[in-house]
Amino acid sequence: MKLLEDMILRYGEVRPGNVLKVDSFLNHRIDVKLVEKLGEELYEAFKNDKITKVLTIESSGIAIAMMTALKFGVPMVFAKKRKTINLSDDVYTAPVHSYTNNRDYEVMVSKDYIGKDDVILIVDDFLANGCALRGLIDIAHRAGATVAGAGIAIEKGFQGGGDVLRAEGLKIVSLAIIERMSDDSLEFRR
Amino acid sequence: MKLLEDMILRYGEVRPGNVLKVDSFLNHRIDVKLVEKLGEELYEAFKNDKITKVLTIESSGIAIAMMTALKFGVPMVFAKKRKTINLSDDVYTAPVHSYTNNRDYEVMVSKDYIGKDDVILIVDDFLANGCALRGLIDIAHRAGATVAGAGIAIEKGFQGGGDVLRAEGLKIVSLAIIERMSDDSLEFRR
Repeated sequence: MKLLEDMILRYGEVRPGNVLKVDSFLNHRIDVKLVEKLGEELYEAFKNDKITKVLTIESSGIAIAMMTALKFGVPMVFAKKRKTINLSDDVYTAPVHSYTNNRDYEVMVSKDYIGKDDVILIVDDFLANGCALRGLIDIAHRAGATVAGAGIAIEKGFQGGGDVLRAEGLKIVSLAIIERMSDDSLEFRR
Repeated sequence: MKLLEDMILRYGEVRPGNVLKVDSFLNHRIDVKLVEKLGEELYEAFKNDKITKVLTIESSGIAIAMMTALKFGVPMVFAKKRKTINLSDDVYTAPVHSYTNNRDYEVMVSKDYIGKDDVILIVDDFLANGCALRGLIDIAHRAGATVAGAGIAIEKGFQGGGDVLRAEGLKIVSLAIIERMSDDSLEFRR
C-alpha cells in the first residue's frame, strides 16, 4: 500500500536491534485517517471470507483492528497481555515471547468472546517473527474457531515469521513488507 | 446516553470492590457500532472547542478515542503505561494510582506528540476517582497545551472524582453516570 510505504519512508525511524519506530503515526500518535484507510484495505482483502470477528492484541493493534472491524460490521476482541501466568477456566491463554523487549508474557482472551462459530481475522500493527500471531492463532483454534487469516500493517519480511506462516497455509495480507532495513536504507518487497 | 445506559443495564456485571465489568461490549470484546456512536456523541459535546488532538491511555481508552478523533479529523495520542519509573528527557510522565488493581504505575507521552499549540480533548472509558484523568491533565499542562475537557464513556459518580474535577472548572461530559451501584441494582444520575 503506497500510502503506508510513503509514511514509513518519511516518518519511520530505524533503531538498533531491527526496531522500526513508527510512533509518530501508528502506535503512539495515531494518524486516524491513515488507520481508517488501513482498515479499508484489510476489509477489501478479506471481504469474501465471511469474517465474524476481528482479533488483535493490546495496545497498538487496537486502533487498526477497530477500523477494520467497523468496515466489516463485526465485533473486535483484543487479547490482553499479562506478565504473570494465571490459570483460569474462564480464559484461553497463550505464551508469547517478545524479541523486541526480550521478555515472555501471556496473552489472554475470555472464553465468552470467541467460539466455534467464529471466523476470525487477526489484525496487528507488526509481524516480525510471528510469535504474537501464533499465540492468537493458537487461542482461536482452542476455541474451535476458524482463522481466515491475518491482516498486518507492517511486516518485517527479513525476520521470516510471515513467510513461515504462509508456507504453513495461512493467508497473510501485509500492507507494507520490509525486505531489507538498515540505518540509512529501507527496501520494500515487490 | 440512553443506548449506553441500556447496554450497561443489560450486559454490565457488578463485581466486588465497586467494579463494573463491561468486558462484553466496551473493553475486551468491543461493540464497534456502539463505540462509533460514543465517538459521535463526544464530538457533538466538544465540536465548538477547537480540538486539535484527542488524548487517552492504553488500552481500553483507545477504541473510543479513535472513533472520537476520527469524527474531529485530528490525531489521537495514547499515553503508555509503565510499571517502572524511568526518567527521560524525551517524555512527559505522571504517576497514577489504580484503585481497581491497587497499584501504582506511570503514564508517559512523548514530548514530540503534544505541544503548546494543542487544544486537547481527553477521552477514556471510565472515570472513577479521577487519578488517571489528573495524570493526563498534568501531562498536557506541562506540555503547555490547553485541556478543553474530558469525554468519558462511564463515570462512577459515587466515587466522586468527576465532581471534584468539575468543581475545579474542568468540562467533563460522561455518556453514562452511575449514581448508585450494588449487586442487584444500578441507578444512573439524571
